Amino acid sequence: MNASVAQNVERSQLRADYDLVRSETERLCAPLVTEDYMVQTMPDVSPPKWHLAHVSWFFETFLLGKYAKGYQVFHPAFDYLFNSYYVQHGKPFLRPKRGFLSRPTVAEVYEYRAHVDRGMRELIESCPDEELPTLHELITLGLNHEQQHQELLYTDILHIFSENPLYPSYKPLPVAEKREAPALNWIEIAGGLVEIGHDGDGFAYDNEGPRHQFFLRDFKLASRPVTNGDFMAFIDEGGYQRPDFWFSEGWATVNQYDWDKPMYWKKQDGDWMHMTLHGLQPVNPQAPACHISHFEASAYAAWAGKRLPTEFEWEHASQQVQQDEQGLWPGNLLDPGAVKLMTTDAASPAATMGDGPLHQMFGDVWEWTASPYVGYPGYQQARGAIGEYNGKFMSQQLVLRGGSFVTPRNHIRPTYRNFFYPPDRWQFTGLRLAEDVD
Amino acid sequence: MNASVAQNVERSQLRADYDLVRSETERLCAPLVTEDYMVQTMPDVSPPKWHLAHVSWFFETFLLGKYAKGYQVFHPAFDYLFNSYYVQHGKPFLRPKRGFLSRPTVAEVYEYRAHVDRGMRELIESCPDEELPTLHELITLGLNHEQQHQELLYTDILHIFSENPLYPSYKPLPVAEKREAPALNWIEIAGGLVEIGHDGDGFAYDNEGPRHQFFLRDFKLASRPVTNGDFMAFIDEGGYQRPDFWFSEGWATVNQYDWDKPMYWKKQDGDWMHMTLHGLQPVNPQAPACHISHFEASAYAAWAGKRLPTEFEWEHASQQVQQDEQGLWPGNLLDPGAVKLMTTDAASPAATMGDGPLHQMFGDVWEWTASPYVGYPGYQQARGAIGEYNGKFMSQQLVLRGGSFVTPRNHIRPTYRNFFYPPDRWQFTGLRLAEDVD
Amino acid sequence: MNASVAQNVERSQLRADYDLVRSETERLCAPLVTEDYMVQTMPDVSPPKWHLAHVSWFFETFLLGKYAKGYQVFHPAFDYLFNSYYVQHGKPFLRPKRGFLSRPTVAEVYEYRAHVDRGMRELIESCPDEELPTLHELITLGLNHEQQHQELLYTDILHIFSENPLYPSYKPLPVAEKREAPALNWIEIAGGLVEIGHDGDGFAYDNEGPRHQFFLRDFKLASRPVTNGDFMAFIDEGGYQRPDFWFSEGWATVNQYDWDKPMYWKKQDGDWMHMTLHGLQPVNPQAPACHISHFEASAYAAWAGKRLPTEFEWEHASQQVQQDEQGLWPGNLLDPGAVKLMTTDAASPAATMGDGPLHQMFGDVWEWTASPYVGYPGYQQARGAIGEYNGKFMSQQLVLRGGSFVTPRNHIRPTYRNFFYPPDRWQFTGLRLAEDVD
Amino acid sequence: MNASVAQNVERSQLRADYDLVRSETERLCAPLVTEDYMVQTMPDVSPPKWHLAHVSWFFETFLLGKYAKGYQVFHPAFDYLFNSYYVQHGKPFLRPKRGFLSRPTVAEVYEYRAHVDRGMRELIESCPDEELPTLHELITLGLNHEQQHQELLYTDILHIFSENPLYPSYKPLPVAEKREAPALNWIEIAGGLVEIGHDGDGFAYDNEGPRHQFFLRDFKLASRPVTNGDFMAFIDEGGYQRPDFWFSEGWATVNQYDWDKPMYWKKQDGDWMHMTLHGLQPVNPQAPACHISHFEASAYAAWAGKRLPTEFEWEHASQQVQQDEQGLWPGNLLDPGAVKLMTTDAASPAATMGDGPLHQMFGDVWEWTASPYVGYPGYQQARGAIGEYNGKFMSQQLVLRGGSFVTPRNHIRPTYRNFFYPPDRWQFTGLRLAEDVD
Repeated sequence: MNASVAQNVERSQLRADYDLVRSETERLCAPLVTEDYMVQTMPDVSPPKWHLAHVSWFFETFLLGKYAKGYQVFHPAFDYLFNSYYVQHGKPFLRPKRGFLSRPTVAEVYEYRAHVDRGMRELIESCPDEELPTLHELITLGLNHEQQHQELLYTDILHIFSENPLYPSYKPLPVAEKREAPALNWIEIAGGLVEIGHDGDGFAYDNEGPRHQFFLRDFKLASRPVTNGDFMAFIDEGGYQRPDFWFSEGWATVNQYDWDKPMYWKKQDGDWMHMTLHGLQPVNPQAPACHISHFEASAYAAWAGKRLPTEFEWEHASQQVQQDEQGLWPGNLLDPGAVKLMTTDAASPAATMGDGPLHQMFGDVWEWTASPYVGYPGYQQARGAIGEYNGKFMSQQLVLRGGSFVTPRNHIRPTYRNFFYPPDRWQFTGLRLAEDVD
Repeated sequence: MNASVAQNVERSQLRADYDLVRSETERLCAPLVTEDYMVQTMPDVSPPKWHLAHVSWFFETFLLGKYAKGYQVFHPAFDYLFNSYYVQHGKPFLRPKRGFLSRPTVAEVYEYRAHVDRGMRELIESCPDEELPTLHELITLGLNHEQQHQELLYTDILHIFSENPLYPSYKPLPVAEKREAPALNWIEIAGGLVEIGHDGDGFAYDNEGPRHQFFLRDFKLASRPVTNGDFMAFIDEGGYQRPDFWFSEGWATVNQYDWDKPMYWKKQDGDWMHMTLHGLQPVNPQAPACHISHFEASAYAAWAGKRLPTEFEWEHASQQVQQDEQGLWPGNLLDPGAVKLMTTDAASPAATMGDGPLHQMFGDVWEWTASPYVGYPGYQQARGAIGEYNGKFMSQQLVLRGGSFVTPRNHIRPTYRNFFYPPDRWQFTGLRLAEDVD
Repeated sequence: MNASVAQNVERSQLRADYDLVRSETERLCAPLVTEDYMVQTMPDVSPPKWHLAHVSWFFETFLLGKYAKGYQVFHPAFDYLFNSYYVQHGKPFLRPKRGFLSRPTVAEVYEYRAHVDRGMRELIESCPDEELPTLHELITLGLNHEQQHQELLYTDILHIFSENPLYPSYKPLPVAEKREAPALNWIEIAGGLVEIGHDGDGFAYDNEGPRHQFFLRDFKLASRPVTNGDFMAFIDEGGYQRPDFWFSEGWATVNQYDWDKPMYWKKQDGDWMHMTLHGLQPVNPQAPACHISHFEASAYAAWAGKRLPTEFEWEHASQQVQQDEQGLWPGNLLDPGAVKLMTTDAASPAATMGDGPLHQMFGDVWEWTASPYVGYPGYQQARGAIGEYNGKFMSQQLVLRGGSFVTPRNHIRPTYRNFFYPPDRWQFTGLRLAEDVD
Repeated sequence: MNASVAQNVERSQLRADYDLVRSETERLCAPLVTEDYMVQTMPDVSPPKWHLAHVSWFFETFLLGKYAKGYQVFHPAFDYLFNSYYVQHGKPFLRPKRGFLSRPTVAEVYEYRAHVDRGMRELIESCPDEELPTLHELITLGLNHEQQHQELLYTDILHIFSENPLYPSYKPLPVAEKREAPALNWIEIAGGLVEIGHDGDGFAYDNEGPRHQFFLRDFKLASRPVTNGDFMAFIDEGGYQRPDFWFSEGWATVNQYDWDKPMYWKKQDGDWMHMTLHGLQPVNPQAPACHISHFEASAYAAWAGKRLPTEFEWEHASQQVQQDEQGLWPGNLLDPGAVKLMTTDAASPAATMGDGPLHQMFGDVWEWTASPYVGYPGYQQARGAIGEYNGKFMSQQLVLRGGSFVTPRNHIRPTYRNFFYPPDRWQFTGLRLAEDVD
């Protein structure tokens, strides 16, 4: 294949990737009514309309504005309204006020998306050959960015609906047969001087590298995440009332907010119910515990006499899992098979798990680790606004691994490092236990 | 006319009144898009959708639920969602979360209105004769309640749009010729033992009575409200920087929020602009100053060497004004003549003011008085939820008189007592000066 | 008596008054240890050391600094540290930080007092005759100011001790015989066009005038304040749980702070105890209810089917009481007879009350009225820093009348207007009921 | 030496250690006046009186109460008042209210200390031989605990004095000759699989172990801490105004508190001054920068194009320093030689630094590392109240190494892990830079 042909193939593939991710975002929003697009229930939550515009702003600002000759911005004020946190790019509109913007309307935001899409397709087709590698890299970053917001859309829609006493449902609950969670086994994994971090093939965020050596002791990892049933035992044995299981800050949080159960749970006539994307539903004891903060995950581990794994242990162990064969790939919410696993039905049945000893490492729920989120040895934050992507958040957060059932499948990697603050629990977050080898 | 005929006339009139007020609410909302109905920019502001539902809830709860046989409530949860503050009726949905409710949708709320309207028309037509007086009284209260919310809708729409950097316009600004504010004269008014309060003819809120004697000293009242031009002088002479003009709490507020101008004003290229229902517009020095808190009104008066009138002085003086002939009746915002007066154009031209010495007492802007809002001698708060209407707010607020250009014309009375907290300024509030007679 | 002799008499009297008030402040502090002088338990409370210095600063600033030739200020920084709120005089040290000042020490503050006293005595003796009237007026204001702080010292010491789990006692509880509260009678008082306000004889604050006419309807006043026993019935009948008795803001306060009893009360083994200046003591049902906010006073009145009197009613009624003969004059805390009345023992026995029908109008507890604190007709705030004394507080507060058992006896007047915010209750505040005459 | 003799020697040594540490605490407080003991300027600060009592409470609770037969507690309420955070031991008195306690008095707290000391000496002398090892361990923990509070006393006294506009001085500034900071060199240190953590000889906190292997890359460490002069350049070049140097949370903190300089600095007539234990003094450009938060330390490093070292790098590098010969041992504040180094004078002169390449690793200022504070591999938190010492704080804090000039000399160890939150800067905290080897 000569260079020109290769370029054309690359352009075609890029265009196909672009269209796939962009259309998935809109497909995901199809069940929403106009009013749903407007709501911001807390500063951490953005209105769906804002997500739709912001991911487009990324392409307009970092691609079209810099590389597309003659591109006309859709609206001059959008650069201010839909910038999220890139403070080096300009002072963004205040985050807690995103729900104040009735204009532009939802329809106008969809027009904005179409405008940007036209520009991007034109740019992919017509950019000079020598710019293609740079554009390819930036577009890939933009698409990964949009995939992150796809997951956030699910997260935020659930939070928005959870604040409504009518318990709206994003999607009807599919009928499904009951399944059991896999048995809990402790898998011993040999340590040593191991390699951690992305090796450079395919896309990865800068925070996944540099790949480096890390000395690990031998350890054991639970074969599956903690289930709702497990977590009920913690509640029943007074886990939320005993300070000795908690970090000092966690205990303060428990008392400040009167926590006594995972987020979205409520007791109704003696039974545990929880708010889900299918509305209010019974809690399934077989499904992985979800909407757990790092504080709760740590307290659970202390109560169980175990600990959370480090992110190094998790990543090293995950290499034993063949993602395609053995992992659980729930796809996304429009795939009923995936959804039912999380909510009503048993989690990953053995049949779909392959023969490996570690179950549900990928998909299902993000798993909190014991590792604070910091740069790997040799990590250098990129300069300029685009460099704000990851490095500036390397303070006070904890690493989560594995992806959840609303994470786009091709957005999950063994080296992927998600991060949230220890009290955060509106994401789809759970835990898996570890312990030392004596 | 025999009793039966009289009853029929009464029913017809009641139905006509009901339809007029209810349709006016919807006419007022016609310029809004669906997204506008959703926004809550601060706890004091309610989303327009909530206003539309809440005023209907009033009829459903206090009329249909009690008097209409076989009435089916539209939705069982609405009683919780759209109760405002009647704590004796039940715990209301939290005020600051009204903007979280994407469901019911705007369309569903309009269906709710239609459902209530059908029930109300049926009730008016078919209720037993002996219940008609009670229903008449309650319906009149409900319509006055809805008129209050019509004014709040204008107030809240302005606040919602003011938080949007796109400066949306509720209504285009009409073209109008320039006019001058009337000259400022000091009208001396004789005091003595005067009568204050509503005399019982026609509807009035309970807080407007009992009519009672009050001893007034002679006083002087300004012939017109303070204008924007007047207020600019206060700003220019350092009014916001000199503590001696301010109440202690007012001065604390000035410093806490960095106040240095009326709400909605901003300086642009050296000129004062302000956010209005027509979008961002130049401040007209001839129009009455508006969006002024009681703290600012009091400080302005101290700076001017005058004082605010008491509500007793204001009411007594207002009896000299023939409302129909001399007052300014701006009607409502869909009447362009009214709107232009407030924003671009001169305020009440002499031609429409009659020959009386006091101008713009009714309409234009609510005028802060020096009087704290308390019950009149002999005032008794009604028992039960309906009694919560006025009495429970008789703490910490100040009385305003006269109505604004967005107050429905037939909702303005000389005895009408509006009330807000001293730092409040998102209402259409201004001031008129008074002074002692030596 | 010629002018010169008269002047000498005046100087002697002034010196005697000065010494009396100043020494009383120090006598009042005698039971304190050094550590007690340092504590600030909330922004409203000042450390006793600060009170001692601040009242001296008043004399240094407004008398010595202006009229005493060659006076050397004690310390240049004290003008900043011990200014309270006279913002026109200069930016004061932040109120909530008064407890941060370990230096100057208590001993140094007493030296400061002695230094100011020497200067003041010298000034009283040697000022030019023509300045004496002005000085006399200012010194009288300064002494009244210091008397206010004497009362605040008691108030603040109680608050300071109340926050200490050791329940320190300011003064041992005297042994006393049990007495009964007077029977509750309703005294009808004729209204009409009455005179309200100070008539100009003797010292009064500017807010007590101008004397003016006020039209009062006939009314009834309770013969005695509400007792602790009365208030227990309000508690027992769910007064703190029923919103219909409360102002909207009061109800919010009840819920925000979980109020279910007066300040300083606590239930111990089924009995009501309260923190007093004698430490933790049983609540005496015969004594007047105390440490009640305006919100609670108003709710109590609503529960009782009565109302609070206006300040005009109170003042008019009080003219029937001969203070010297009939009122209760508890003197001050160092007089055991006074103290026991408030805390363990029966309130004002008939023997000391005279034959009048109204009991305990003066002394015992400050009585909340229904009247917001505003200027009387014709009131003009004095200009300059000294004018900040009263006028700038005429917003959001309510008037209290009558004085408490810790108010210096000669600081109580029928026209005296005390004022606090409606949720305030760390002062010695109670209530007396009123009702309309049908 | 037979067992009995050895025991006697051990008891003598223990008694001597006990007396030394306990008397040092009182010697440290000698310059304070009674009022100084009372002040709490923020929740993080405890009044010196509280420190004095709390460290005694530790011995009373964990030693005397459990092991001393017939011991009478000094006061039953002290267990509640002077418990700090051992929530498993009982609910402690609220931290922000420690400054409210005027009683017990300072004199009583010194009596409490004497009472505890008598009990402890008796216990050391007379406890059964078989209990001696346990007691030895607990007493050593108690003495180390008291040494931590000695450092906190300096820290808190400085904060208390800093809030006083009189700028009190804890100790006069000694006269000293000017010295220069050592030149800044970059010392390359070889990595590999190194040993980290305490090896078990002598006392160490549980968080200093287990000793374990860690793989380190080669790195370079600055030969000395960042100086005030260095930091002035950061300020001058807009370091506090450029978001790209800061973590996202750091930037929010900068804006929330308007940070534009280290804590305690203020500009006076164009010169940098700072509040010190000698009162307000000029900032010495040669001394190490101090009172820097982790946010500022990280931003400085980003501005300088370097990074903070990890705690593993720091500990590994520190093994090259002979503490006794080469390190700077400022002793304590009563040693003038130490104090002058920090404030006016040059930092560690080469003469006292030995010949090693790394200067001022121990003493001077605590050095922020890039390492979040978490347990080492295999770390197990001890159960029970005493186990709350370290483990429960392993969330959200960062490790500091090396000790400061107010850290007791024998309380400094290469493996010592101090920890604070990233915005904290009232401790004596600075930084040293590191960089990668290419």
